[in-house]
Amino acid sequence: MDKPPKGNAVVGQSGGPTAVVNQSLVGVIEAARKCGLIERLLGARNGVRGIVEQRFVELQGLDRPLLERIADTPAAALGSTRDRPDEAYCKRILEVFAANNVRYLFYIGGNDSADTARIINDMAAAAGYPLCIFHIPKTIDNDLRVTDHCPGYGSAARFVAAALMGDDRDNASLPGIKIDVVMGRSAGWLAAAGELARQDPTDGPHLIYVPERPVTEERFVEDVAETYGRLGRCLVAVSEGIMDEKGVSYGEKLAASVERDSHGNIQLSGSGALGDYLAQIAKTTVTQKLGRKTLRVRADTFGYLQRSFAGFPSPVDRREARLAGRKAVEYAASGLPSGSVAFKRAAGAKYRITCFRAELAEVARETKPLSDEFINAAGNGINESFRAYAAPLAGPLPVIGRL
Amino acid sequence: MDKPPKGNAVVGQSGGPTAVVNQSLVGVIEAARKCGLIERLLGARNGVRGIVEQRFVELQGLDRPLLERIADTPAAALGSTRDRPDEAYCKRILEVFAANNVRYLFYIGGNDSADTARIINDMAAAAGYPLCIFHIPKTIDNDLRVTDHCPGYGSAARFVAAALMGDDRDNASLPGIKIDVVMGRSAGWLAAAGELARQDPTDGPHLIYVPERPVTEERFVEDVAETYGRLGRCLVAVSEGIMDEKGVSYGEKLAASVERDSHGNIQLSGSGALGDYLAQIAKTTVTQKLGRKTLRVRADTFGYLQRSFAGFPSPVDRREARLAGRKAVEYAASGLPSGSVAFKRAAGAKYRITCFRAELAEVARETKPLSDEFINAAGNGINESFRAYAAPLAGPLPVIGRL
Repeated sequence: MDKPPKGNAVVGQSGGPTAVVNQSLVGVIEAARKCGLIERLLGARNGVRGIVEQRFVELQGLDRPLLERIADTPAAALGSTRDRPDEAYCKRILEVFAANNVRYLFYIGGNDSADTARIINDMAAAAGYPLCIFHIPKTIDNDLRVTDHCPGYGSAARFVAAALMGDDRDNASLPGIKIDVVMGRSAGWLAAAGELARQDPTDGPHLIYVPERPVTEERFVEDVAETYGRLGRCLVAVSEGIMDEKGVSYGEKLAASVERDSHGNIQLSGSGALGDYLAQIAKTTVTQKLGRKTLRVRADTFGYLQRSFAGFPSPVDRREARLAGRKAVEYAASGLPSGSVAFKRAAGAKYRITCFRAELAEVARETKPLSDEFINAAGNGINESFRAYAAPLAGPLPVIGRL
Repeated sequence: MDKPPKGNAVVGQSGGPTAVVNQSLVGVIEAARKCGLIERLLGARNGVRGIVEQRFVELQGLDRPLLERIADTPAAALGSTRDRPDEAYCKRILEVFAANNVRYLFYIGGNDSADTARIINDMAAAAGYPLCIFHIPKTIDNDLRVTDHCPGYGSAARFVAAALMGDDRDNASLPGIKIDVVMGRSAGWLAAAGELARQDPTDGPHLIYVPERPVTEERFVEDVAETYGRLGRCLVAVSEGIMDEKGVSYGEKLAASVERDSHGNIQLSGSGALGDYLAQIAKTTVTQKLGRKTLRVRADTFGYLQRSFAGFPSPVDRREARLAGRKAVEYAASGLPSGSVAFKRAAGAKYRITCFRAELAEVARETKPLSDEFINAAGNGINESFRAYAAPLAGPLPVIGRL
């Protein structure tokens, strides 16, 4: 292991914001001050785009109170990007690094960002340019491989659980069928967090649908009718990315004009189309099946609030996102080769994690679906075992009082 | 003033839930125990419906920890109703009251509930049945007359402000045009709370549209294009009840187009319809006007989370909702005639309220629009004076940290 060189460092943020992505940024800033190797810490505005455009902000002179305010502010304080660099783009990045004596890159993002980090790292190695890159995981989707869970997920899970908990009480007050669409294009981790809202067997969400299991209209109708027949109401949480039996997502089917970002991802969040579609089925087929003339049916799509709501982060998620940022710098300063910061959960009843270095290639590109063990046999709900996994991440939730 | 009689009391909850409607319920329970006149306190399940169906729950034996949990749980613990009693319905209510020696009714709700209270009160007087009714105000819409503000509004305003604050940081991270649809069919109080999210002149929401001012498509296009041209992004908060220059609500217009499209050509979402519609205008006309090929445009509809999100109430709203419930019982026990509990704000810089009794007829039926003084001259934003009015109600909000 070569002795790590002194030089400058760049830190950037990429992809969809989270409530704690600035905790990781502040973790990098703190550790960079201490490590003794980093002369200038340059924040790249809008991720890789700010690197090629040389839009940098000096991050080492910021005072502690400002850093703490930034850490607790949702979304990327440096600005984010959806750019996915190709070879020419990465070449330009390396040129900028060489011109600025940048020897370290800390890049906060999801699997696409890990892939960007991997490409730059490979190009630097091929060019013989000494560069250490650490990817710092960030995603509300919780779909990165290797790590036990991802910074950003706990706060989003906390928001979704509190939203569904309140909405379940709303639905109990004015009974009917309610459908809540939760973020998650390809993985059901966030919709599964709805399970944390349930404190009594009669509490909703009574049904949780995730992209990992096919959802047919027939199945949806039967499930909702059965629940309504039993409880006189039904709260449904559904991932925006649910698919039919042929593996075609409802979002894709419903989108009049499918918009894709530069990574080829379909834009699903925000439009109420899926919720409205399922509500329409409930208003017609479910209502008929129950032999009723009319039922109260509503749908909400939680949208960007899940990733950027201010003032309601998970305490554990805040701490761990900060830790991931610090660890990235510490690993680089200790001479470890480029990689991604990952969490490992210690065995035992008490929640505790340790960090380790993962290979960039193991985190890049492909994602991790919601584990089979957490999905019930019927494919319409979440197993009790998920609670042990997710409850520590979301942090303490309100306790429902009921008459 | 007659000496108030000993007897039983009924308490009920009506209309759309809020985050603190159970604080008022617990306030009634606490004061009923102390007042020395109420022998049994009966909670009516689902408001007036539970009265006519005699579905009551005894509320006097509940222990303190349970009461506090109930108080902090969103939505109506007794269940709510949308029933609006006619004469025959009210007659049945009085029969149930007579059969159960009910001498007091405490009814927690909005202007419709105040009207129900008024009708029952008039009928009881006409029948010579001694009955004291107190309406306890509750609405996220903040649209009740007489009172300075309504319990439930502060928590909804807090939610909307925190949501827009986070979404503004999200929009600053990944710049584009974002449209957020806020509850409020006929009054702009809740959309106006978006103003509390702004801590810097460049912060969004940059435009706030309310039902009290006409919104033409031309105006919307000009406003959004001007903001985007100046800041490179634009966050818009819009009441669901905004109307065109002819006083026709967009919701009504869009519902009509949904019906026209019922043969299945265009997917126009119902719940997200207004947001999708405005997003479509931004994607086409605004984008053209700015001479761009494409702009990033998204829309969210905040939905029921505004009224029932768990664990994020306004501290002031919690206290005041409890106070309103207690005052209702104290007014009744002190021999005051039937009425509604109202808040008066004390003059001076420090926020302080006192309670008083308002006439039921003054609170019933008609609602209070967002005050003219709070709407800017252009009709597309909120004046600074609104902050002094609303900030104490929403309570302390996170402080944005920025680079």
